[in-house]
Amino acid sequence: MNIESYIRDVPDFPKKGIVFKDITPLLACPEAMKDTADALAAPFAGKGIDLVAGVEARGWIFGSLLAERLEAGFVPIRKPGKLPYKKISRTYGLEYGTNTIEIHTDAVQPGQSVLMVDDLLATGGTMSAACNLVKELGGTIAACTFVIELCFLPGREVLKEYEIHTLLEIQGE
Amino acid sequence: MNIESYIRDVPDFPKKGIVFKDITPLLACPEAMKDTADALAAPFAGKGIDLVAGVEARGWIFGSLLAERLEAGFVPIRKPGKLPYKKISRTYGLEYGTNTIEIHTDAVQPGQSVLMVDDLLATGGTMSAACNLVKELGGTIAACTFVIELCFLPGREVLKEYEIHTLLEIQGE
Repeated sequence: MNIESYIRDVPDFPKKGIVFKDITPLLACPEAMKDTADALAAPFAGKGIDLVAGVEARGWIFGSLLAERLEAGFVPIRKPGKLPYKKISRTYGLEYGTNTIEIHTDAVQPGQSVLMVDDLLATGGTMSAACNLVKELGGTIAACTFVIELCFLPGREVLKEYEIHTLLEIQGE
Repeated sequence: MNIESYIRDVPDFPKKGIVFKDITPLLACPEAMKDTADALAAPFAGKGIDLVAGVEARGWIFGSLLAERLEAGFVPIRKPGKLPYKKISRTYGLEYGTNTIEIHTDAVQPGQSVLMVDDLLATGGTMSAACNLVKELGGTIAACTFVIELCFLPGREVLKEYEIHTLLEIQGE
């Protein structure tokens, strides 16, 4: 399947000069979604993945599909104030300002193998913070997997301690 | 399956006096997730559902599983400023203040049959606004389906023009 044909470029979003990679045409096509989820899951079949963790919000769309394929639990990592139970948080830097994400303290048991998923690898800041949350609970990062990688951004370098999988690598800015 | 045994009551969240229904134990259990998604999808098998629409963020976890089971496209309905393409929005009242949700204008074609999904039916305000977005684009609401219904809140009355399905009905406050 040619995933790229299902990704729409939206110029100047969220701000002037940025070309946003819009995955909604992919989501709208059942065959393309199935093929994408199959391709995301394939490297991890039989690899003993206990949990799939996805960062709110777009990571959840693929996260639950991936968890089902791998017969793993699904762990939602959320924006602040959303998770109701005991939790820990990480704050990380953005181009301007900071973001915080949170995870329930009982979401990962020590020694569990956790596959991290998101739709897009850009700067890697969110995924790095998400991995740190999982590790703080004693989990092992099996790999980080993404539908799209923006290769002109430093995401892969930021996440260099982890195994990285991406389905569509976009070279040009 | 007894879904209720996978739902955790968290008292006084998000504010004092509210008992929050926490679905993360359900998400953590692959068998419970599979059974829940199967049960959500079952009434709609072979009913010609073209699209499954879920409201950010928890609705997406079940939304993609449901779309896959029904061989339908998935439509993300989002909080303001998140969708990159041409869109329409609806603002609706909350207990204090208002919320706004948005949908891409090309997400639904006139005449398509759309199944609406969320994890929790409470006041029905968000789902009502989401249905109005889909109808504004010419879609037909096949039904609204939820994992949990809080029967002591007026959600079912607010959505009375639609077919409603829920898996777990919670009577007491």
